[in-house]
Amino acid sequence: MNSFGKRLVVTTFGESHGPAIGCVIDGLPAGLEIDVAFIQGELERRRPGKSRYATARKEEDRVEILSGLFEGRSTGTPMAMVIFNQDQRSRDYSAIKELFRPGHADFTYHQKYGIRDYRGGGRSSARETAARVAAGAVAKLLLGRFGISVEAGVMEVAGIEGRRLDFQHARQSPICALDPEREGEQREAILAAKQAHDSVGGAVLVRARGVPAGLGEPLYHKLDAALAGAMMGINAVKAVEIGLGIEAARLRGSQNNDPITKEGFAKNDAGGILGGISTGEEILVKIWFKPTPSIFQKQRTINEQGEEVELQLQGRHDPFVAARGSVVAEAMMALVLADMLLLNATSRLEWLERIYRG
Amino acid sequence: MNSFGKRLVVTTFGESHGPAIGCVIDGLPAGLEIDVAFIQGELERRRPGKSRYATARKEEDRVEILSGLFEGRSTGTPMAMVIFNQDQRSRDYSAIKELFRPGHADFTYHQKYGIRDYRGGGRSSARETAARVAAGAVAKLLLGRFGISVEAGVMEVAGIEGRRLDFQHARQSPICALDPEREGEQREAILAAKQAHDSVGGAVLVRARGVPAGLGEPLYHKLDAALAGAMMGINAVKAVEIGLGIEAARLRGSQNNDPITKEGFAKNDAGGILGGISTGEEILVKIWFKPTPSIFQKQRTINEQGEEVELQLQGRHDPFVAARGSVVAEAMMALVLADMLLLNATSRLEWLERIYRG
Amino acid sequence: MNSFGKRLVVTTFGESHGPAIGCVIDGLPAGLEIDVAFIQGELERRRPGKSRYATARKEEDRVEILSGLFEGRSTGTPMAMVIFNQDQRSRDYSAIKELFRPGHADFTYHQKYGIRDYRGGGRSSARETAARVAAGAVAKLLLGRFGISVEAGVMEVAGIEGRRLDFQHARQSPICALDPEREGEQREAILAAKQAHDSVGGAVLVRARGVPAGLGEPLYHKLDAALAGAMMGINAVKAVEIGLGIEAARLRGSQNNDPITKEGFAKNDAGGILGGISTGEEILVKIWFKPTPSIFQKQRTINEQGEEVELQLQGRHDPFVAARGSVVAEAMMALVLADMLLLNATSRLEWLERIYRG
Amino acid sequence: MNSFGKRLVVTTFGESHGPAIGCVIDGLPAGLEIDVAFIQGELERRRPGKSRYATARKEEDRVEILSGLFEGRSTGTPMAMVIFNQDQRSRDYSAIKELFRPGHADFTYHQKYGIRDYRGGGRSSARETAARVAAGAVAKLLLGRFGISVEAGVMEVAGIEGRRLDFQHARQSPICALDPEREGEQREAILAAKQAHDSVGGAVLVRARGVPAGLGEPLYHKLDAALAGAMMGINAVKAVEIGLGIEAARLRGSQNNDPITKEGFAKNDAGGILGGISTGEEILVKIWFKPTPSIFQKQRTINEQGEEVELQLQGRHDPFVAARGSVVAEAMMALVLADMLLLNATSRLEWLERIYRG
Repeated sequence: MNSFGKRLVVTTFGESHGPAIGCVIDGLPAGLEIDVAFIQGELERRRPGKSRYATARKEEDRVEILSGLFEGRSTGTPMAMVIFNQDQRSRDYSAIKELFRPGHADFTYHQKYGIRDYRGGGRSSARETAARVAAGAVAKLLLGRFGISVEAGVMEVAGIEGRRLDFQHARQSPICALDPEREGEQREAILAAKQAHDSVGGAVLVRARGVPAGLGEPLYHKLDAALAGAMMGINAVKAVEIGLGIEAARLRGSQNNDPITKEGFAKNDAGGILGGISTGEEILVKIWFKPTPSIFQKQRTINEQGEEVELQLQGRHDPFVAARGSVVAEAMMALVLADMLLLNATSRLEWLERIYRG
Repeated sequence: MNSFGKRLVVTTFGESHGPAIGCVIDGLPAGLEIDVAFIQGELERRRPGKSRYATARKEEDRVEILSGLFEGRSTGTPMAMVIFNQDQRSRDYSAIKELFRPGHADFTYHQKYGIRDYRGGGRSSARETAARVAAGAVAKLLLGRFGISVEAGVMEVAGIEGRRLDFQHARQSPICALDPEREGEQREAILAAKQAHDSVGGAVLVRARGVPAGLGEPLYHKLDAALAGAMMGINAVKAVEIGLGIEAARLRGSQNNDPITKEGFAKNDAGGILGGISTGEEILVKIWFKPTPSIFQKQRTINEQGEEVELQLQGRHDPFVAARGSVVAEAMMALVLADMLLLNATSRLEWLERIYRG
Repeated sequence: MNSFGKRLVVTTFGESHGPAIGCVIDGLPAGLEIDVAFIQGELERRRPGKSRYATARKEEDRVEILSGLFEGRSTGTPMAMVIFNQDQRSRDYSAIKELFRPGHADFTYHQKYGIRDYRGGGRSSARETAARVAAGAVAKLLLGRFGISVEAGVMEVAGIEGRRLDFQHARQSPICALDPEREGEQREAILAAKQAHDSVGGAVLVRARGVPAGLGEPLYHKLDAALAGAMMGINAVKAVEIGLGIEAARLRGSQNNDPITKEGFAKNDAGGILGGISTGEEILVKIWFKPTPSIFQKQRTINEQGEEVELQLQGRHDPFVAARGSVVAEAMMALVLADMLLLNATSRLEWLERIYRG
Repeated sequence: MNSFGKRLVVTTFGESHGPAIGCVIDGLPAGLEIDVAFIQGELERRRPGKSRYATARKEEDRVEILSGLFEGRSTGTPMAMVIFNQDQRSRDYSAIKELFRPGHADFTYHQKYGIRDYRGGGRSSARETAARVAAGAVAKLLLGRFGISVEAGVMEVAGIEGRRLDFQHARQSPICALDPEREGEQREAILAAKQAHDSVGGAVLVRARGVPAGLGEPLYHKLDAALAGAMMGINAVKAVEIGLGIEAARLRGSQNNDPITKEGFAKNDAGGILGGISTGEEILVKIWFKPTPSIFQKQRTINEQGEEVELQLQGRHDPFVAARGSVVAEAMMALVLADMLLLNATSRLEWLERIYRG
């Protein structure tokens, strides 16, 4: 249950304050050039501590590849990557050790397992997403060989909606904002929440280009279903839309259907997916992050004994998680698409013939 | 890829106009009383042809259980169920045989497989959902033994939003409406679209009660992620929200966090899930259906040769699919929860001790 | 747990005396011509009641294809096949209803599930293997497109070992004997056991030809491991050998290693597999069947209450199961190879490029 | 394909001469005490370089646990273990770099992936089995909580068959011999082969005690089938027998059937498994190892260009791999049984009721 994917299978491990986090990628085709600097660069994009809009926690996030790589290429054997936790100092956790932080997984892990590593959220910490980003970087390298690219950025912060989709801009923005014109207002909203010891939510758009028609495995591993599962599994995500999403539900069929022309679809309200299979158009997914549950105000909660207590959190937390979340969302989209690319390879007898009959 | 679930695994098969559709349920614990009339009743709820708000296609949908049942109980062996297609008349499909209907899976199945059963949409037809409903009914029987119930109903039609959640009412409403006060207006919107040879979309709320805390398997099979995948895989669904969903993304953390008290959570904006694991509160999922792509107006499309053609559909189709879709959504939620119930059984050493040490 | 395979996934269902048995094949590439007469012919080869060396149970075993087939070809959607049980007469099972037949699965199913369909062995009956043979026939059709063939025959009966491997002969022999010269003696041994109300065991050789080098997925889905699992899962099999098998363990390395030459391997003691991956030579697997546990002599056993009782079986049973077992073994080998063929399609980046870059 | 198990899923990674090998164990129930010294002790048992009967390669094999452990207990999250390769010196591999060693996986990895890490056999090296032993040790800790133990030892070396089964003795014997009386002769056979620059094969018996009746998942994950697959996947194994194995195939049914009495089975020729499910008796599996393919005599082979060449291996290799293989076989049996224990937990409705209804 800590594995993701059917043919490109990524297994992650590690807790926020344990010795290390990491992942094992299984099913990677042999012969792929592995650009380690690119993987490290992707981790850098996700890394916290870079701006005042994000947590001050310093994580170096240096990835080490332990296997599956030989003379710069994948060998077909599992690629294990590990990131040792640098910032693993033995803080005093006695304040939250026996409490359940509202909006966090403390309560539910305790209910499920009867034991939990409370240090920094343990396994449920966003720290784990570094492993996803490392795996996603490898998926991007694979996709890149087929002209497929994945990008993401923040559309909305605290109800302030961007209109433009400037993915170039998002890569440089400290809050990964897509709309340069609304970014100032969005940044102010984050800082205002931070000053109020509070937090805000927002929305991220993830886009894939160059995806060939035919990816997605009906009926129970449709492309949109797999993407929805992948995105909803990211910490703090509470809603996922494909293409027009909710807006489509308020249109009539005659407005919503995308006419098909010789040059392709006349519009792409479907978000590049029909019947759970890619159409060849851009894949468009919008995801919604709740405000960070870690706030620095007094909150009502209970302890492990079931007694009501008042919680006052200390520490370092993002007042807005969607920015770094957008990098994670890219990784998850890349992993889904790479997996679908492999799965689709056996859809047609004639494709097998191309392989085995040369 | 036609299987759903990890421990309670449902495999479905069948095309709209083939000999039969059906499913095989694997992993069902032995000793469960199987109420065949209940399964048949659930199929009846999904069955089309019952009102003027839905397609006139007549399907008898009589389920036959071929295996896994002995003296009224499950035996632990796979339960196969089959529904022979009654309405399998050899219509003339020459009009759509080589065309790709906009908003449908015709184009993508063709791109993926190079061959497709065009009769009535083949495998991508909503007809297949009868198999899901049959399997979901069995899941409900299992959940019922643990006091867990699942219900669904239509919240919104064509932008007309209901406010009340009267699940009792929804069971009797021909459009499965949750709000008796808005139902009239909602029905009119459907009929208006139908008269205009058009269609409308809407939203469905799915609710589970009695779910114990602890269900959901982090990190890649979280309860919310699994539900999002299950729901987005239903035909025509374009968005999924958990709990407050998008609204949560516009609140501050101090507003959105659910305080915890001795009696449970002070509110349930999280929709009963934290960190991907159930909290013990109601599970609340909202899903959005696009308007039915089958409309009876002229549409632009291409044929298999890539030539632009005009399409004029004939036939029988729901002008609004979310009503029957709500029954399918119940089934999918039941399947996810039943699977999670089984998966969770090995989460703790002490639970294994209860089994093996008596 | 009633599914077999990773990419070509076969799910079987059904009990000996229930309404039907059958299977669902998922993952079959689209575009494969389905020769239904061939499938039926394979079932005929497995069918009992054809000679006095086998049980007199009459099973017509007529297969119906319910889905996944369109205009004679596979469509990429699941292919369901069902065989209705003709010989489902309501015999009197009261004699064995509460007893556990020695050597049978009665005791263990009871221990595992607490409930069992005792009629004719229920799910554990060899009747189920008809579904495997049907699925295996489809796998053979796929393999045939790549020049791969699978054959099997009986090498040894009751310790009487054949030396020649005449697979042509085996297809006509009522006991599927590979060695025409020893067949007479082998047949006599079966009849002698039958007259003594007893049974005998034997060995089957399964051979695949035309298998390309490279099939098998290390480390936990090696070709030899998958074959061993598949073969040991056939009713009554107690041992599996690859290539020289046990004999290899008594040689020195210098004798056992197969030298490699320009023309291929100088000999094939390895049975066509090295490091869990096919070498391009013939795949050779030998499997050993225990004597049929159903014998018609008095046996000591206990009943469900734990009381010791004497059992005297009545009915129809093969005195020698390996003959029909050889047809099942062919099917299992075909399923493993077809699955490996699909799995291997994504082993190399260059193969994906052949598919996606044309 | 580098994962093993269904509910207790072990993923291994690493090459012989890469930075590290390791594993991730997923699905371990929370609350299990983890005795790290025990895990290290198991690795010590497998470790080479301890006697003149085995390779002189020195591996320290110190395991580090990176996750899933908190205050001495499992937490339900994945447990990653890593063993850094100490003996990773940059030897000169130019002699074998482009050759395919007979009896090895060199040729097949090359055929499958088009690229291979030739250093020390890369992924196909027996070095990887250290990760299996570490994971198996954790499985043993889990099994121990339920009174289940697993042991193995060498029965036969180079055709010299032991008769006694003294598992205590095997733990101290440098060749893991079960029969103290034949051990001297067996050791001499190994040394004789070593002096002749050759190698020998042998047989290992693996036994589990305390296994409750009911483990094993028919029909395609039977206990015997899973064990056969697990054992055949160990390097150099060419045959697997359950219980009497081949000998059973030469008995009559009346001899082979195990009568059932009030006290249990009157004998255990079945090896503790009927119908793929454990009977409650001892599980007995016998496996056969081929002689080590690495010999130090001249051998005929080809290079990557397909030219015939003479190979003269240098280096350190076990002349007899079954001794250390017996420790690996124990680990694999433990992993299979632990997985089956978890799988079986949902076989009966009443067991779920014990968990969820207290």
